Amino acid sequence: MQLTRYTDYALRTLIQTALMPDGERLSVTTITATYNISRSHVMKIVQRLGQLSYLRNVRGKGGGIELGMPPDMINIGQVVRDMEANLQVIDCNSPGCKLQPACRLRGILAEAMGAFIGVLDRYTLADLLDNRHELIRLLALDEPA
Amino acid sequence: MQLTRYTDYALRTLIQTALMPDGERLSVTTITATYNISRSHVMKIVQRLGQLSYLRNVRGKGGGIELGMPPDMINIGQVVRDMEANLQVIDCNSPGCKLQPACRLRGILAEAMGAFIGVLDRYTLADLLDNRHELIRLLALDEPA
Repeated sequence: MQLTRYTDYALRTLIQTALMPDGERLSVTTITATYNISRSHVMKIVQRLGQLSYLRNVRGKGGGIELGMPPDMINIGQVVRDMEANLQVIDCNSPGCKLQPACRLRGILAEAMGAFIGVLDRYTLADLLDNRHELIRLLALDEPA
Repeated sequence: MQLTRYTDYALRTLIQTALMPDGERLSVTTITATYNISRSHVMKIVQRLGQLSYLRNVRGKGGGIELGMPPDMINIGQVVRDMEANLQVIDCNSPGCKLQPACRLRGILAEAMGAFIGVLDRYTLADLLDNRHELIRLLALDEPA
């Protein structure tokens, strides 16, 4: 019962982008090095977060990744909905389950997933940054990648 | 963001076992045929549900699988806790995430998972059987496997 790594690293990328000093932008290379994941995976995540306007990719000298909107406008529940391909807790269709037309389990699991997302809906990226100085120290963002 | 198939089929097995007519018991062969999954997977699930006392395996003529306790004693949240190896929503340790000592995301995701399980804790197997006649018809449990 885990979020995909795609969603997980999307959230981490948003945190890391938000922690950049004023006027500085994050590079894919730095994200890759920080989390020890493949460059192609990071590229896909950054591209998707850009399509969703959570990130903006600024080209040229001094370019890089920056947030596309203020941290308190980035809702964690919405990011999870946007990044997870599937929020069905079980797969009733492959192979197709005979119980489906009368199944009570599906409704209960959907209610539980609603409660899960409902908690995340109460938080924004800003809530993940309230100890930003400690996070910046841990990421050593002031050191060269 | 899905439960494992192991947990999913454990829940389906409990439902199917509870739907057997009085005095009749379920066979692994019937479960395998109903859900179109491998016999070895069903065996592992049935064995684990037996260890947890949710099921009892009666040997000999007329033997088979029956519930080990009344349906209203089998809590869905507890079954999910028992069957899922991991209720950590993301894996912070492989590779180890530098943010861990100060990460707020972990706490928020744990709160969300608590809400998910909290919903399931309000239901028992009995709640999944309130339309038992329709479920029995769908499973065609009165037909030979």
